[in-house]
Amino acid sequence: MKVSHIEHLGIAVKSLETAIPYWEKMLGSKCYNIEEVPEQKVKTAFFKVGQTKIELLESTSPEGSIGKFIEKRGEGVHHVAFAVDGLEENLAECADNGIQLIDKAPRGGAEGLSIAFLHPKSTGGVLTELCEDKNKK
Amino acid sequence: MKVSHIEHLGIAVKSLETAIPYWEKMLGSKCYNIEEVPEQKVKTAFFKVGQTKIELLESTSPEGSIGKFIEKRGEGVHHVAFAVDGLEENLAECADNGIQLIDKAPRGGAEGLSIAFLHPKSTGGVLTELCEDKNKK
Repeated sequence: MKVSHIEHLGIAVKSLETAIPYWEKMLGSKCYNIEEVPEQKVKTAFFKVGQTKIELLESTSPEGSIGKFIEKRGEGVHHVAFAVDGLEENLAECADNGIQLIDKAPRGGAEGLSIAFLHPKSTGGVLTELCEDKNKK
Repeated sequence: MKVSHIEHLGIAVKSLETAIPYWEKMLGSKCYNIEEVPEQKVKTAFFKVGQTKIELLESTSPEGSIGKFIEKRGEGVHHVAFAVDGLEENLAECADNGIQLIDKAPRGGAEGLSIAFLHPKSTGGVLTELCEDKNKK
């Protein structure tokens, strides 16, 4: 596998309304996109910091995975997303190496990316997302 | 404040011996430095992934902050480090904005950086490190 860079860092927040001004001040960078992903039950807000994006995640339902995460662990880093070329081949390689896939096939994520999650039980406790931007090619 | 990029992502691991081969395979990038920071009671291992480093942290004592973190939360992302210019001025700005400083003044970190930590209670649950590479100037 070859990761080119950290595509984004997902941070679980209770409220985008409170978190956006904090991160704008901390990073010195304006939030450039807010997007709802209904199938994930989240509203997301994006910032650029060098090569990487910060993706704030607010749950739109207590039943969603972000709602449950915050209930259990509080606000904080939720996942790390690595940019790869050839997401399907990379997923197959992960499976061959004994890594447990949450998504067995790529699916659509925020910002038009193809994404898939790997289970933190097999990735050293780091909820890991692989993503590919097919529009860039 | 103006962050140029994510300098590194600190990941708490139980054992570097187990974690290094996993991350070398996941990132497709060799560990290029192993360093002990006795005053932090940690042994660290570094990888490059684009602009950002992955810093694995193994506790050299159960009393150290990484040992306590793993006992409480398990392995996983421990902190996020942002690269800034002018660490002292940035710390003063953080304090002015009501952010609780763990380090009131810069101190030495791994890889020769000047670093300071901010308390996760005032940074949306993200243990935040600010760092400056004075050797680059």
